[in-house]
Amino acid sequence: MLRDHTCGELRAADAGKEVTLCGWVAKVRNLGSLCFVDLRDTYGITQLNIDPAYFDANRLHSEYCIQAKGKVQLRSAPNPDLPTGEIEVAISEYRVLSASKQTPFIIADKTDALEDTRLKWRYLDLRRPVLQHALKVRDIALTAAREYLHSLNFNEIETPTLIKSTPEGARDYLVPSRTYPGKFYALPQSPQLYKQLLMVAGMDKYFQIARCYRDEDQRADRQPEFDQIDVEMSFCEREDVLHVIEGLVSHIFKVAGNIELPPFERISYDDAINLYGTDKPDLRFDMKLKDVSFLAQAGFKAFEGCAVKALVVPGKAQETTRKRMQLDEQLSAKFKVPHLMHAKRENGQWTCAAFKFFAPESLAQLEQVLGGSDGDLAILAADRDYTRAATALGALRVRYAQEMGLRDPKVFRPCFVIDWPLFAKTEEGYEALSNPFTSPVPEDMHLLWEKPEDIRSTSYDTVLNGEELSSGAIRIYDKKAQWRVFEILGLSEKDIAERFGFFVEAFDYGFPPEGGFGIGVERLMMELLGDENIRDVVAFPKNLTAAEPMSNAPDVVPAESLDCLGIRLKAKEGV
Amino acid sequence: MLRDHTCGELRAADAGKEVTLCGWVAKVRNLGSLCFVDLRDTYGITQLNIDPAYFDANRLHSEYCIQAKGKVQLRSAPNPDLPTGEIEVAISEYRVLSASKQTPFIIADKTDALEDTRLKWRYLDLRRPVLQHALKVRDIALTAAREYLHSLNFNEIETPTLIKSTPEGARDYLVPSRTYPGKFYALPQSPQLYKQLLMVAGMDKYFQIARCYRDEDQRADRQPEFDQIDVEMSFCEREDVLHVIEGLVSHIFKVAGNIELPPFERISYDDAINLYGTDKPDLRFDMKLKDVSFLAQAGFKAFEGCAVKALVVPGKAQETTRKRMQLDEQLSAKFKVPHLMHAKRENGQWTCAAFKFFAPESLAQLEQVLGGSDGDLAILAADRDYTRAATALGALRVRYAQEMGLRDPKVFRPCFVIDWPLFAKTEEGYEALSNPFTSPVPEDMHLLWEKPEDIRSTSYDTVLNGEELSSGAIRIYDKKAQWRVFEILGLSEKDIAERFGFFVEAFDYGFPPEGGFGIGVERLMMELLGDENIRDVVAFPKNLTAAEPMSNAPDVVPAESLDCLGIRLKAKEGV
Repeated sequence: MLRDHTCGELRAADAGKEVTLCGWVAKVRNLGSLCFVDLRDTYGITQLNIDPAYFDANRLHSEYCIQAKGKVQLRSAPNPDLPTGEIEVAISEYRVLSASKQTPFIIADKTDALEDTRLKWRYLDLRRPVLQHALKVRDIALTAAREYLHSLNFNEIETPTLIKSTPEGARDYLVPSRTYPGKFYALPQSPQLYKQLLMVAGMDKYFQIARCYRDEDQRADRQPEFDQIDVEMSFCEREDVLHVIEGLVSHIFKVAGNIELPPFERISYDDAINLYGTDKPDLRFDMKLKDVSFLAQAGFKAFEGCAVKALVVPGKAQETTRKRMQLDEQLSAKFKVPHLMHAKRENGQWTCAAFKFFAPESLAQLEQVLGGSDGDLAILAADRDYTRAATALGALRVRYAQEMGLRDPKVFRPCFVIDWPLFAKTEEGYEALSNPFTSPVPEDMHLLWEKPEDIRSTSYDTVLNGEELSSGAIRIYDKKAQWRVFEILGLSEKDIAERFGFFVEAFDYGFPPEGGFGIGVERLMMELLGDENIRDVVAFPKNLTAAEPMSNAPDVVPAESLDCLGIRLKAKEGV
Repeated sequence: MLRDHTCGELRAADAGKEVTLCGWVAKVRNLGSLCFVDLRDTYGITQLNIDPAYFDANRLHSEYCIQAKGKVQLRSAPNPDLPTGEIEVAISEYRVLSASKQTPFIIADKTDALEDTRLKWRYLDLRRPVLQHALKVRDIALTAAREYLHSLNFNEIETPTLIKSTPEGARDYLVPSRTYPGKFYALPQSPQLYKQLLMVAGMDKYFQIARCYRDEDQRADRQPEFDQIDVEMSFCEREDVLHVIEGLVSHIFKVAGNIELPPFERISYDDAINLYGTDKPDLRFDMKLKDVSFLAQAGFKAFEGCAVKALVVPGKAQETTRKRMQLDEQLSAKFKVPHLMHAKRENGQWTCAAFKFFAPESLAQLEQVLGGSDGDLAILAADRDYTRAATALGALRVRYAQEMGLRDPKVFRPCFVIDWPLFAKTEEGYEALSNPFTSPVPEDMHLLWEKPEDIRSTSYDTVLNGEELSSGAIRIYDKKAQWRVFEILGLSEKDIAERFGFFVEAFDYGFPPEGGFGIGVERLMMELLGDENIRDVVAFPKNLTAAEPMSNAPDVVPAESLDCLGIRLKAKEGV
């Protein structure tokens, strides 16, 4: 090695040792008679003391990569903020390995460089310790995941990424085939079918940290390629899988973040909507929604035929100006709930200009249901669609909590949202809420032939602080039930064969009961690190146009490359 | 769980327990008054004893997936070949979870099913214990790799797979971009540039088990997508990297195969060619080639101006018929060395009809150099091209060894082939023997400006039993040297910018000395398992046309899907 120590390890006890270090110049302080250089590597920073009497100290500049030899000595003024702060290295010899131009931005944890600038010189951006830390924690987290799943006898098995395109879900990335010109592979959105087939193969317990791809319009929390901790197991019931998820996520948070997660609550989909107005409830604060649908019969015209939900925000009455109410209405309008009613609690009762239109018995009942103290604010939302009214208030609940500092990033409240409906009724018939292989809960299996809209599915989401960490389900293994689901979804034999042909054939060969889940790695890391930007937890991310500014991918390719794939560019049609 | 035990764990000590098992029916033996069922899962086989007086035993057939409850009892006739052979389960209740049609081939370790049939029903093929074993050993091997590299403080960092196409090496798989119609991503042939940039970023020690892609014509030992244990480290010299490779490969063989590898020999490229006639020497047997080029001056016309190499095969004189000699010549003809000379050792000397044309002094010298015993065979190969003569004999060396049983699959002899030439001289100039970022050995650096053909490179191959396991190199970090290499390779500034633009820009920002390697996972697994077929160590492999017979990938996609990518099929041009 060109070094015998890293820049992070020398301590007072090493004083007197002759050492060789390598790293990058983080800072030069040339005091004329003395010159100090902070030498940085990924392990830390060590101060070099260079005597200008022997060396031309003006040769060194920021981000030069150098090798330096010298003797460790105690500093006259130790730096308590630095693990190596007790010592410095008095340099007897050094060598510039490679020089550096001035970097397009300063290498420091905090930067005001534009993101595309940072992405263009990502190898410089990644010199910032905060990003290196994120990549290291990611490694620790994924190592913990593998360790935990291996301890439960899961086997990591790699599945292919050049697969058949399926018309489900998001848009596939396509890969033209050279051996079959005019045909295409797809990059997988998840290893779903392969992991299920591994169960049919009898592999029993599978996992994979799998690269997945979705050609969707990008958002701040999406990347075109992302990783998923993908798990599947045979002969299990829902609680068995939830147990694995809870153990796995808790282990990762403990090992990679030194965070003890509390036990995971189980909340039904209906309760999540009722109490939190969302299928991703943030449990760090209470402020549960209340049902006041009895107000539909209170004589108030606008509420007739509506579901009415209420949110009580403690102590917010005073601040609730007209402008604030309009702001609330703008948010609820996004959920197509145009009208809200704001009430304030004064002198032991709820007051609102519109209450004069309500029957007194209804107001008395409202008092009972809402409770509250003087100075509280209540917001009522009414809509013919129950879920819509609840969802609008759910969004307000989160916004008020945010303002009130109730969304503490150091508090973690995980839960499972279970008992989702299997189907949603549409104008034409039914659509599946998760993939079409999700099983009903065993007690509702008979409803497949009776009342599909009442079936609860075995699917489960893991939600942490209002964000979805993972989703999964127990799969159908009974051929009759699977075909009945296809029928409910309006798929013909031809549709089935075209979309899932090779997969559904496996139902003829001893298909086992099985279930599993997938955890989005980037989302997990963002929660673990308290980071809001997905690009901070990925080494070489794409930007919002799915491009990589550093390499300029995607890019044009020579026409010959397309020739042998049997494709041509549309723009060239007229030529 | 639908079971409380697996099919592999019950022993005599469990007798009397009530258990529930799940698995697949491997065999039914219905003896009329007694019915035995072998129930299989990935952990083993347990015998079920089903009383036909209570159950309709004709209901069960091979590959049915069932759940069975009953009491563990000692067998009257234990089966010593089975870990569970002391017991059976007397069934009190069972349930068919899913039935099975007759499978297209028998589920057993040995199969004579055609490979495309096996691949079409891969989920049945994977029920064969031998394949499940291969996938489990693969998991153990890769876990051992991660464990070892983590113990040396390497961090696993994921690099992107939607990257910029580069014209180097094999053909890229391309991925059309929707956000930039007419532009393409490429799938990476390796993470080479990204791992080097991670070193420029200062990540110090990187590894990744990385999916790589090559759109090459398939051979028995290739797959269009494959995995690579990819490693890179900063501030290292060649021996540091070799030390990591040796430790890593030895650890994997120990943990996953219980195989103790001997220390890795170091052989120069020149010695490998001289002594073994190949850059992938099989060291399990001796039979080194000898140089007898002095025979070029022996007066024998055909040898004039040639290099002459000799191979002595012990005890093979007797068997060497004219037909056998023709067979040898056919093999050497593949290396464009059309003529061989076979000599036999009889009565203490080498004899050959052609020797009458040789000067006696030369024959005396030949005696000295070859040595040998009566009954030995010597083969001489002469060619104006030294390497060609050696390579032809090298191939014969391996074939004779194979026939003589000297290529023992239980013996492992790893080595590093080092000191490769950096460039090969071509008619137009020079070409690089590895990638253009490979550094010369430090002692030869000055030859970049003097005699490029004499430069030894820092690249190293790891060779095990005649197969290449990994390759790698120390990289150039000096900008001047890198540009000189480009110049020697005949690349203009424009070529450089187009091909490596974003990468070479990093040479301006403190590029560190670094080196690394990549180990092909599939090749490693084939060596570890003694398997000749790459498809046996991959869960869902492609066939020789790069297709997956199970899912029928690649396949046609709807025209709309191509529309938004800005491409169209060439076949449709005329429409």
